[in-house]
Amino acid sequence: MDYFKYTNVMREKLGREGLSLEDMEGIGDMAYRRIMEKYDREELGFMEVIYRDIGEYSLNHRYREFKYILVIGMGGSILGTQAIYEGVKGIYANELNEKKVFFLDNSDPELLYSILRIVDLKETLVFVVSKSGNTVETLANFFILKEMMEKKGCGKDNIVIISSGGVLKEIGEREDYQIFEIPENVVGRFSVLSSVGLVPLSAMGVDIERLISGARDMDKICRRDDLFKNPALMNALIHHLFLNRGKSISVLMPYMERLYRFSMWYRQLWAESLGKDGKGQTPVAALGAKDQHSQLQLYLDGPRDKIITFIRVKRFRGDFNIRYRGHYLEDHTLSQLINLQQLGTERALTARGVPNLSIVLKDLDEYTLGKLIYMYEMTTAFMGEMLGVNAFDQPAVEEGKRITRELLEGRAKGEEVLEEYVIKI
Amino acid sequence: MDYFKYTNVMREKLGREGLSLEDMEGIGDMAYRRIMEKYDREELGFMEVIYRDIGEYSLNHRYREFKYILVIGMGGSILGTQAIYEGVKGIYANELNEKKVFFLDNSDPELLYSILRIVDLKETLVFVVSKSGNTVETLANFFILKEMMEKKGCGKDNIVIISSGGVLKEIGEREDYQIFEIPENVVGRFSVLSSVGLVPLSAMGVDIERLISGARDMDKICRRDDLFKNPALMNALIHHLFLNRGKSISVLMPYMERLYRFSMWYRQLWAESLGKDGKGQTPVAALGAKDQHSQLQLYLDGPRDKIITFIRVKRFRGDFNIRYRGHYLEDHTLSQLINLQQLGTERALTARGVPNLSIVLKDLDEYTLGKLIYMYEMTTAFMGEMLGVNAFDQPAVEEGKRITRELLEGRAKGEEVLEEYVIKI
Repeated sequence: MDYFKYTNVMREKLGREGLSLEDMEGIGDMAYRRIMEKYDREELGFMEVIYRDIGEYSLNHRYREFKYILVIGMGGSILGTQAIYEGVKGIYANELNEKKVFFLDNSDPELLYSILRIVDLKETLVFVVSKSGNTVETLANFFILKEMMEKKGCGKDNIVIISSGGVLKEIGEREDYQIFEIPENVVGRFSVLSSVGLVPLSAMGVDIERLISGARDMDKICRRDDLFKNPALMNALIHHLFLNRGKSISVLMPYMERLYRFSMWYRQLWAESLGKDGKGQTPVAALGAKDQHSQLQLYLDGPRDKIITFIRVKRFRGDFNIRYRGHYLEDHTLSQLINLQQLGTERALTARGVPNLSIVLKDLDEYTLGKLIYMYEMTTAFMGEMLGVNAFDQPAVEEGKRITRELLEGRAKGEEVLEEYVIKI
Repeated sequence: MDYFKYTNVMREKLGREGLSLEDMEGIGDMAYRRIMEKYDREELGFMEVIYRDIGEYSLNHRYREFKYILVIGMGGSILGTQAIYEGVKGIYANELNEKKVFFLDNSDPELLYSILRIVDLKETLVFVVSKSGNTVETLANFFILKEMMEKKGCGKDNIVIISSGGVLKEIGEREDYQIFEIPENVVGRFSVLSSVGLVPLSAMGVDIERLISGARDMDKICRRDDLFKNPALMNALIHHLFLNRGKSISVLMPYMERLYRFSMWYRQLWAESLGKDGKGQTPVAALGAKDQHSQLQLYLDGPRDKIITFIRVKRFRGDFNIRYRGHYLEDHTLSQLINLQQLGTERALTARGVPNLSIVLKDLDEYTLGKLIYMYEMTTAFMGEMLGVNAFDQPAVEEGKRITRELLEGRAKGEEVLEEYVIKI
């Protein structure tokens, strides 16, 4: 059985800091109604897109022959794909699998430089992903690669465009690359279950049918209008209530290496959807058990400004017996250790009055990842309504982009270093 | 010239939210005096250990012949080593270098399982690092590996112990492994410039002499009793003043992939040193430019609870010209793009009143990494004095460990899942 547990936010366990059932009345219903109205007005593409025929996402050529896959994209165009790829294929997948997958998600030239030293471009299938088609880092990397690939005689089958417009789509049409559209009403950070994620993931060997099947099953669960049966609505409500009580930080802490990228995906979803008009809650991506040796002291005894969500998975791929005589670890397995560490940490936090939630899964695979992803998309949508912000735009980021463009075009002055307020080091 | 810039926290740039010179009086002197007194009482081993002869850190056998290096450790026993290794050797180092380096820093069995599928244990040099010698994840992984290595006929040269006691040192002595001590007065998260980091880093081909030389030069700078010439004291003071003004989160955001692990090292240092007695500031590890597409909306327009530190490096290894005709990126390089993105973001934040600092380096190498590491160690030490906490202990983490041990020994009951407050998903 997979479950969402909110015992450790309730008064019975948490004491004075905890919630009572009365605290939960009202707000959930309002948020639920508004989201369903937005859905009825066809504003919430992420809820529609999971019902498309997955046949739409097929490549028109023999992509299996490529030895390398490279995805170019930023933020919502790539974080979900990384989360699912790593969640399914595991850590060190490139060292262990024949097909090598790379993600080009920064304008740091060393990233491109390193990847180019590893891959053979002729054997590389490149996905260029940008909804606007104008994302500057994506274009910069793509312009450089495209020139190199043309020099090496790569064909049009090497490049696949996933975009709805801009320079990128223009190039795709002119060069006759295969192009996948992103539905207009699907926002970047909510787009992993559209062509954005499904086209490259399918080429990477991820079972996208199972993934979508998990999302669809979770959709049914998240449409229940009973708060106590709807994990996304309950999760949003609990975060909302604790944000109002000063918990300005939401930590997501899975106890499994394969889920670290999922936390990074969540981190964008939560920050960019809710962080506006002075509102929002800062997401923190943590990882158990390792962060017990890095962040736990702060969580237990620092400022009371956090709510923590654990994800625990019961089954690991491969396990080991510990046989060292006379030590208390003797006759345990590593998976027992990590799962009991999670439980020990949860109890220590609860005893200190730190609210914490748990998602417990029997297994982590395409199906459960589809469920998790969709549950968090719905949680974020509900939370936006509770906070009274539009969870589906990101107006503030345009400012830095504008200044950068002015600097690039020479219309703004570069850095002046004044002696005042500078210390040489 | 390398420099620390605090212009964008001052009233001239930041407006009403900014600091004036009067705000800075007094507290810095007190913290400086207390740290120097602690140093005189020989309580601050991290300030002494950088003056040891680095000849101490040599392995007694032909370690160069090993094809794989594996470091086992948690928290302060491994985060600094990872930061320096990745900072020097770069991302994708295993794909590009002959010597492959792995870090076993979790109790997730899949991590060990994946590493074992890649390495040949007979050709693997294993460093087991734990100051107490009793760290449970480290012992669990080591117990399993030790048994496997014995079965494969690995010799005592395969294993090196870095520890000051506990089960680990006992085993080291019994089995006649080479053992490196960690000085008693050097705390785990401040220990990377002791045997903890220097022994494995040297075997990985990092120039530890240059690293230590950077730290020693920074030590001179951080001993200046003039706030306006001491970057660690100034950095601590600024963080302290803004924490008092409600900036409960400190974001470290380098614009270079090679520095991401440095942020993870900083994250432990800041959290575990300062997060106690209800005090502290939550560190967040961010990475530019990629997090502009994930966290920047929140930083610009969310709650005003952050102070941000950028690290910008002028020179990259390898760079690329962008030649796409007619686009505003034409005739720029990728390194220009990322550095101007940092500047654009800095200006956008300043315009919104978000305090931000910059560390600007000409180059990132062993020398500048040594400087950075030491500057942050000193910053943290000064900040502890300003907050009035002991930066060199971590008492709260014992609780979770105790509960986990009771669960392992069967002295505490495992999880009960009550129907109440649980939603099936």
